[in-house]
Amino acid sequence: MTFSFKTLEKSKESRARTGVISTPHGKVNTPVFMPVGTQATVKTLEPKELKEIGSEIILSNTYHLYLRPGNEIVKRAGGLHKFMNWDKPILTDSGGFQVFSLGDLNEISEEGVKFQSHIDGSYHFMRPEDSVNIQNDLGADIIMAFDECAPYPTDYDYALEAMERTHRWAERSKNAHKRDDQALFGIIQGAFYEDLRVESAKVLASMDFPGYSIGGLSVGEPKDIMYDMLDVTVPHMPDDKPRYLMGVGSPDCLIEGVIRGIDMFDCVLATRIARHAKAMTHNGGITIKNAQYADDFTPLDSECSCHVCKSYSRAYIRHLFKAKEMLAGKLVSYHNIYFLHELMDNLKNAIQGGYLFEFRDEFFKKYYGA
Amino acid sequence: MTFSFKTLEKSKESRARTGVISTPHGKVNTPVFMPVGTQATVKTLEPKELKEIGSEIILSNTYHLYLRPGNEIVKRAGGLHKFMNWDKPILTDSGGFQVFSLGDLNEISEEGVKFQSHIDGSYHFMRPEDSVNIQNDLGADIIMAFDECAPYPTDYDYALEAMERTHRWAERSKNAHKRDDQALFGIIQGAFYEDLRVESAKVLASMDFPGYSIGGLSVGEPKDIMYDMLDVTVPHMPDDKPRYLMGVGSPDCLIEGVIRGIDMFDCVLATRIARHAKAMTHNGGITIKNAQYADDFTPLDSECSCHVCKSYSRAYIRHLFKAKEMLAGKLVSYHNIYFLHELMDNLKNAIQGGYLFEFRDEFFKKYYGA
Repeated sequence: MTFSFKTLEKSKESRARTGVISTPHGKVNTPVFMPVGTQATVKTLEPKELKEIGSEIILSNTYHLYLRPGNEIVKRAGGLHKFMNWDKPILTDSGGFQVFSLGDLNEISEEGVKFQSHIDGSYHFMRPEDSVNIQNDLGADIIMAFDECAPYPTDYDYALEAMERTHRWAERSKNAHKRDDQALFGIIQGAFYEDLRVESAKVLASMDFPGYSIGGLSVGEPKDIMYDMLDVTVPHMPDDKPRYLMGVGSPDCLIEGVIRGIDMFDCVLATRIARHAKAMTHNGGITIKNAQYADDFTPLDSECSCHVCKSYSRAYIRHLFKAKEMLAGKLVSYHNIYFLHELMDNLKNAIQGGYLFEFRDEFFKKYYGA
Repeated sequence: MTFSFKTLEKSKESRARTGVISTPHGKVNTPVFMPVGTQATVKTLEPKELKEIGSEIILSNTYHLYLRPGNEIVKRAGGLHKFMNWDKPILTDSGGFQVFSLGDLNEISEEGVKFQSHIDGSYHFMRPEDSVNIQNDLGADIIMAFDECAPYPTDYDYALEAMERTHRWAERSKNAHKRDDQALFGIIQGAFYEDLRVESAKVLASMDFPGYSIGGLSVGEPKDIMYDMLDVTVPHMPDDKPRYLMGVGSPDCLIEGVIRGIDMFDCVLATRIARHAKAMTHNGGITIKNAQYADDFTPLDSECSCHVCKSYSRAYIRHLFKAKEMLAGKLVSYHNIYFLHELMDNLKNAIQGGYLFEFRDEFFKKYYGA
């Protein structure tokens, strides 16, 4: 089965929609939150646990896997699905974001990017063709064109230059792509300039990718600016293709993104804060390490029905954190991902039921107290 | 249901036997290996995973739980079973071994032991009565009398003194014990002196405990000395009570212990080495981090049918270790405990089938190459 996308229901009050993505490894119901498995593992969790939590697709990072264990090893293992024992859909990014943000030094040219490994300082050169070849080796169901992600803030001239290069690299990525069982998405850039975002959306749309990502947001800008960019960009993205907002995963941004027509999200936030004892609950975020939970024998989130909330108390999870037990971060990671999947399910229902804004307002009141 | 022990089959060629221990939280088939959950968690694993692996009873440490989160918290949680969500049998040690080995400073008197916390350096005093009270709060099915574990080597006079104090403390532990749903075991000491071990076994037997532990072995002495001590001690232990060899869990010691009539074992070895990338396999121990496994796509142990061996390759697990992923230690912990449970099952079958020594010789040849 090759890649396809079908929209199911469209919100009358906003750009939100529900849909279903089909891939060679199964279907994904959208809008969807994708847990991040940077190094071929969603930190602390096994694939069978992710299925239990309800994950339908995960993301993995090309930059990390290229450096370690190396795409050659993953290819010889039979691809990323087999290597990590996850038989549902996978999406890989292009490595573009990482070579710009993680590399100690990087030099950008028309040809590609020279960067230093964060592991051993060795030098590497990555061209759009390399990124796609690596992603062909990894074998994810959805892969990304190599792009240049400009920082926030960026002056107009540089934003324009980076965007135009991203378009040329998108073309080169497309030409280098060799596997028709993988869907290659184009990535819209343009930093924080409305006209550039519109132009980028149009140029990429003309290249006819099976899906489109919005890159270069959530890189330090105020959330209102991100929302403004979505408001101007999404109308110029094809309606019949999935829209993926990269690197975004806080509850408020997921909700606001869905309202603005986004179908796919990924973010390390849920699992990263989990390992630092921060849990998302229906009544807002809590830091479970705090002394007040020492003798709190209620679940992490009394309104949650995940395995962790059914099995363990706040007092126990706090104890695990205080005692520096590895299980601590796992239990909260499990819960936080479950929480975001449930949020996405609630958003789907709200779109279908026509009460998206009421849902948002109530969620915000309970979660953020505002 | 209260505590009981029934022997099932006795080996004709050795002191080995199979049996079943009944506790308020269910039955335990012996000989048994008990995974160690020092801080109310078998590191990296959830209770439901331990059940999947086949664990029938786990051990937890009184010293650690007394200091953190505190026995009062565990009691208020409804006891250790509820606190950690493990509804099968639990055994707690007395804290004796830890106050001697972990405390920065300790002072032993007839009354008890003054020691310093390894967490914050605070001073504490533990008497046999305190140890038993704490264990009553924790609520394990099997608890231990407070004992003094002499180091290796120890001179005769000190070994005698420590043993006699252990006997007086055993009596005081018995008098302090308040819950008849918990079975209090006496601990045999006597360091490395045959006459002391025999005396200790006899004195404790006369106190009529529901089970007996052998303490003070596996503290640095050569294995042959440990085996000699078992050979002289076990014949003086009651035949109708379970015999527990404390802190022992390497494959060879488990086998030699079973042959010498031991029913119960515990050890952190399997899980500790797992977190350092060392796996037990049917063909001996391997260090999965080694370069030779980078492209080895076979399971950790090709002769193992555990979930980890059915799901992941050596190359993948090596990658997780190299990438410092928490999942790495979990996967090998899972496998190593499974390996030891399978070994105990094989030993039960060998006792029943009358081929215990053949089993040992074959196992040793394959595992140790000797």
